[in-house]
Amino acid sequence: MKHFTRKEFGELGKIERANLINSISGYKSANLIGTISEIKQTNLAIFSSVVHIGANPPLLGFIMRPVAEVERHTYENIKQTGFYTINHVHESFVEKAHYTSAKFDRQVSEFMVCALTEEFHADFAAPFVGESHIKIGLKFAEEIPIKINNTILVIGEIEHLIFPENALLQNGNIDLNTVEDVCISSLDTYHSVTKIAAFPFARTSNLPEFD
Amino acid sequence: MKHFTRKEFGELGKIERANLINSISGYKSANLIGTISEIKQTNLAIFSSVVHIGANPPLLGFIMRPVAEVERHTYENIKQTGFYTINHVHESFVEKAHYTSAKFDRQVSEFMVCALTEEFHADFAAPFVGESHIKIGLKFAEEIPIKINNTILVIGEIEHLIFPENALLQNGNIDLNTVEDVCISSLDTYHSVTKIAAFPFARTSNLPEFD
Repeated sequence: MKHFTRKEFGELGKIERANLINSISGYKSANLIGTISEIKQTNLAIFSSVVHIGANPPLLGFIMRPVAEVERHTYENIKQTGFYTINHVHESFVEKAHYTSAKFDRQVSEFMVCALTEEFHADFAAPFVGESHIKIGLKFAEEIPIKINNTILVIGEIEHLIFPENALLQNGNIDLNTVEDVCISSLDTYHSVTKIAAFPFARTSNLPEFD
Repeated sequence: MKHFTRKEFGELGKIERANLINSISGYKSANLIGTISEIKQTNLAIFSSVVHIGANPPLLGFIMRPVAEVERHTYENIKQTGFYTINHVHESFVEKAHYTSAKFDRQVSEFMVCALTEEFHADFAAPFVGESHIKIGLKFAEEIPIKINNTILVIGEIEHLIFPENALLQNGNIDLNTVEDVCISSLDTYHSVTKIAAFPFARTSNLPEFD
């Protein structure tokens, strides 16, 4: 077995450490966040940190890297307009989605350079991704500073949720396999996903007999 | 296409809404959090909200549901001892991992009732999961209240990282496919994962020609 201690992380090279630590949370969701600035410049960026915050009210969060020294177009646009979209990434466009992470100038839209389609809906400011089968329109709700490393937890409330009718199961679950959602490991690796099991709501009264 | 608006979420039944909103962040990591109380009672619970916070210092977060009205053994133990473990879930024990979410009494250890092995390491208080191939020992660093719905972002600093030598790639990535890590959708569905692509660090200078 390989055993790294806290001290040994510090001895790794910067890229090796970033790859290692980014690997260990397990598989991550693959989402494109779409925004628009006050002067109608669109932006699109891939995030692997979207996290469920709560169902009622319906809230999603994501982690924004420090904003003090580097331009963060997604963050700036959300603060300017108050709205953004989260769009799932599918097998058919993983490479395009990945390259939205390059540092393009503010006036360059990742929609254009990565050949993804801006899709606007009535009464909603931020652009959705036309190629995405699961699209979420959010209103900015709260930003929470994470002091320990200057990142920010950005939370939004879901105002719109759009997806194919046939992906909705009777119990309210969405079948993500149907739309060929991918997941991410580390910063650069993309995976397809195959359902292996679904279990009942766990209760002490329905516990299976384990070996 | 199915289109839910904010108002329509409120009209859904509680379980249907929970399933729907828990589906839409995309695929989630599957991790077991191991803790021990001051009086040496162990606890194990599955979480799908573990999220990368930063690589330097090495930090992971997870979302804790509201602690005011319901006993949260994981939370209480972390606050009592200051240490916890995060252990990846593999295909071989997904069902056992799932049933750790049942509401067992405080004096019942999920390690025992779900037939998973407590593994203690020298100089580290919290129990690891013997069956897990990727095990992380963390020191509690910070808890951040999320006021909008009374959840808590719990952040820990990684003190130990233990995994099979052959899963470590040259660039520092861990190959999660090698150890048969699973991912989760919604609250009850587990998936196996297959690598489809890895891309270079995205730069404006290495952008592929997209159609």
